[in-house]
Amino acid sequence: MGIVVERLAVVGLGLIGSSIARGARTFGLARQIVAIDRDPAVVERVRALGLADHATGDLAEGVAEADLVVLCVPVGAIGSVAAALAPHLKPGAVLSDVGSVKAAVVAAAAPHLKPDNPFVPAHPVAGTEHSGPDAGFATLFANRWCILTPPEGTEAAAIDRVQAFWQGLGAITETMSPEHHDLVLAITSHVPHLIAYNIVGTAADLEAVTRSEVIKFSAGGFRDFTRIAASDPTMWRDIFLANKEAVLEMLGRFNEDLAALARAIRWGDGDALHALFTRTREIRRGIVAMGQETAEPDFGRRKS
Amino acid sequence: MGIVVERLAVVGLGLIGSSIARGARTFGLARQIVAIDRDPAVVERVRALGLADHATGDLAEGVAEADLVVLCVPVGAIGSVAAALAPHLKPGAVLSDVGSVKAAVVAAAAPHLKPDNPFVPAHPVAGTEHSGPDAGFATLFANRWCILTPPEGTEAAAIDRVQAFWQGLGAITETMSPEHHDLVLAITSHVPHLIAYNIVGTAADLEAVTRSEVIKFSAGGFRDFTRIAASDPTMWRDIFLANKEAVLEMLGRFNEDLAALARAIRWGDGDALHALFTRTREIRRGIVAMGQETAEPDFGRRKS
Repeated sequence: MGIVVERLAVVGLGLIGSSIARGARTFGLARQIVAIDRDPAVVERVRALGLADHATGDLAEGVAEADLVVLCVPVGAIGSVAAALAPHLKPGAVLSDVGSVKAAVVAAAAPHLKPDNPFVPAHPVAGTEHSGPDAGFATLFANRWCILTPPEGTEAAAIDRVQAFWQGLGAITETMSPEHHDLVLAITSHVPHLIAYNIVGTAADLEAVTRSEVIKFSAGGFRDFTRIAASDPTMWRDIFLANKEAVLEMLGRFNEDLAALARAIRWGDGDALHALFTRTREIRRGIVAMGQETAEPDFGRRKS
Repeated sequence: MGIVVERLAVVGLGLIGSSIARGARTFGLARQIVAIDRDPAVVERVRALGLADHATGDLAEGVAEADLVVLCVPVGAIGSVAAALAPHLKPGAVLSDVGSVKAAVVAAAAPHLKPDNPFVPAHPVAGTEHSGPDAGFATLFANRWCILTPPEGTEAAAIDRVQAFWQGLGAITETMSPEHHDLVLAITSHVPHLIAYNIVGTAADLEAVTRSEVIKFSAGGFRDFTRIAASDPTMWRDIFLANKEAVLEMLGRFNEDLAALARAIRWGDGDALHALFTRTREIRRGIVAMGQETAEPDFGRRKS
């Protein structure tokens, strides 16, 4: 691939930001990497891990000479960070982000930018349940999709550069509108997280079943949900607040279907249950066939 | 451990039955292993895999000389299989099962048994999303819990033997009433499966988001749910029908909590969301600390 960016600035060195910094170095995508984080402990850790050529807590200084600035902060912070850095971007510098919600991010960031600083929002659909600069790794985005949602009229060269950057990190890119992105992610990511958080909360609050029993007998299915319910609380709070309409719409669909399923159980309609349980197998086959999931039983979990 | 059973009969050679047969041989728990399945193709496959000393489709013949008979058939079939084999059990032979529901299993099986054939119901909380005799492996139960629910008055020697058998397979055993078991498993296994099946069904039926998009962007959380929604349809149909009350009770709790969560999103109550999302992290830590889950990020999934 070779150099895509002379000077890359990554703002926010959590799981995603630190994976981008690692990947940009591993795959030789940037001549210089600047890491910016408002938390001095994170800046210190980034230096200790050697994740960037320069690590700083000073946003203005950090972005000043960058050609590409990637915001890796919680969605709720995008607006204020964009406002703070916009005056310091050099002409032609491209701004991007990695937020899991796109319409709200565009609305929050775009008004602050000068006309000669194109904004190319992006969302790499990848991650783990771990957080922080130590959690990242260079191959996090390999064979994962990265969705670009450039506003209409964004100059093609800026889009091409962000796309090349993500392809350099190993991702497969696709372009769609911010609104469609938010609907798709509501069902493939946001509602799954919501119901995972919810059932873990429900289980923790029961009186008839102890917390110790929930933990001991979790291998029957529950433990799968605890993984995504261990994701970063601030990031996920912001996602639900920023994608309220699409999440509530998809949750409504989920609830309607769940009511029908509960009714089938109550009335002993085994055929309806069997038909659904057969149909859902196909979707997983599709995901495995498309290389988005391991084919190994039990996710290939090591014996635990 | 050494020999626990002279002659072991396993009825139903799916994921669990074939894992028991493999484990009993690997760990030297039985002098002789008989595999019984009503499906001639499975009997053939069991012979080809060499899973037992004798494989047959004839239930009466298969159980005749056995000291321990373990039923590994769907919960809905337990009653008829117990009725069919009961007259052929030798005096003192112990009957057990591996059903995921226990009160209904006791009610279905116990009436058919002669007084000198103790019934010790068991439920190993272990499995994968795969089915059939090829899916099993000897270490499936290692460090997993196996719950015994012997009816009051069951002779201690029979309970001890079943317990020793499961410990020989590597499981940790615990005893509780069938009713409590069904409540615990409703929240740790049955409702999680129900909502996983449900969201995969919801996603497959949307018009605004294509099935191809659901598959492509599944790495954002959705794909985790597709694993358990790929479990055996007949087994799971039977579980929901046999544990109706506890499942609907726990589903009611889940729905109450989900309504409160939806309300917090609608009204923008970020503090309530953040508080729940922080609390749920602890439960996973407990599960990992108790050795019921891998500590590796993303379940230690191989790159896919």
